[in-house]
Amino acid sequence: MKKMYSLDDILHLDKRFRTQLINSLSGFKSANLIGTAAENGRTNLAIFSSVVHVGANPPLVGMISRPHSVPRHTLENILETGYYTINQVHQSIVEKAHQTSARYDGSEFEAVQLTPEYIDDFSAPYVKESIIKMGLQLEEVVDIKLNGTKFIIGKIIQLIVPDSFINEDGKINIEQAKTVAVSGLDTYHTTQELVRLPYAKPDKII
Amino acid sequence: MKKMYSLDDILHLDKRFRTQLINSLSGFKSANLIGTAAENGRTNLAIFSSVVHVGANPPLVGMISRPHSVPRHTLENILETGYYTINQVHQSIVEKAHQTSARYDGSEFEAVQLTPEYIDDFSAPYVKESIIKMGLQLEEVVDIKLNGTKFIIGKIIQLIVPDSFINEDGKINIEQAKTVAVSGLDTYHTTQELVRLPYAKPDKII
Repeated sequence: MKKMYSLDDILHLDKRFRTQLINSLSGFKSANLIGTAAENGRTNLAIFSSVVHVGANPPLVGMISRPHSVPRHTLENILETGYYTINQVHQSIVEKAHQTSARYDGSEFEAVQLTPEYIDDFSAPYVKESIIKMGLQLEEVVDIKLNGTKFIIGKIIQLIVPDSFINEDGKINIEQAKTVAVSGLDTYHTTQELVRLPYAKPDKII
Repeated sequence: MKKMYSLDDILHLDKRFRTQLINSLSGFKSANLIGTAAENGRTNLAIFSSVVHVGANPPLVGMISRPHSVPRHTLENILETGYYTINQVHQSIVEKAHQTSARYDGSEFEAVQLTPEYIDDFSAPYVKESIIKMGLQLEEVVDIKLNGTKFIIGKIIQLIVPDSFINEDGKINIEQAKTVAVSGLDTYHTTQELVRLPYAKPDKII
């Protein structure tokens, strides 16, 4: 039957239980690998499930960086160099992508056996195995004082998508590219298209 | 046939093509209905695909509000009252949920035939037909000057989830609840669990 939690109930849950529960509430999440390099060239790769569309013109993408978590090097490198890549995670690299969240001393590229790829003169490494990927220039870092996280916003200055996945109207068929969705902290899903709906107008009868 | 776009290429695309393209790049998105009421009690309901997890303790959720788009009443009501609901969209209400994006004069609840539900003394309306839903108190509105959007952050103060969807460890089985994922602007997907992976440790051999 229905279970209802108040804020007080939530705050008194076991920490791990609460983390799992609250991470499930926003719905399905994106799975992306963030590629960066320090000024000294040392590479870093980290999985994020918080990448979100911010705007199309200019093309802006945001993501949440946690304060004391593994992707810390990601933030440091982005602040140091101003550049990073976002690489969609697809079905055949899910395990390697997830494994980047372990606390490695060296580069996660090497540790999980994904291949750094440099395209033109873009300074941050892409994931060669990823199909849909983009190079970003840092635009703004918003401090979220409520919990010490940061909302990182970048502008897409390079975009790599195979032609065959782009529809005539510009939509990318990310399902055909086997891009995965995430639920909670650790569960990966493939998808099946249910319906594509037209631009909604008020005269439609339900 | 990799296709590569520079920032200049992107900025010179046809507007609609660009909107479709850039909206596909973040990966799969969440589908949620945001329920609000004005001080005078008039209700509003709008679909958002930008709801994102911000933190578990305190339980915080964020979403992007566009400057000149249909969910404008949503933002006005949130600022006026300080409260709103987030309701996960599942398979059987996808068409009605999408239709809330049309520009109605009256309440979208009535227009699309979804039922406002008031729980305890929480002032904003829930969607009765939604299975997993939460009541939020506004905590912070971040102005994103880059493009005039706002990042709205709220604290979960009420949470409704049927027991049967909560695992022993706190994870909610949103796939079992038939929650949908979104790609691009207008495509809805059901999911199939691929794998749940353990907390990553560095000694794992790939």
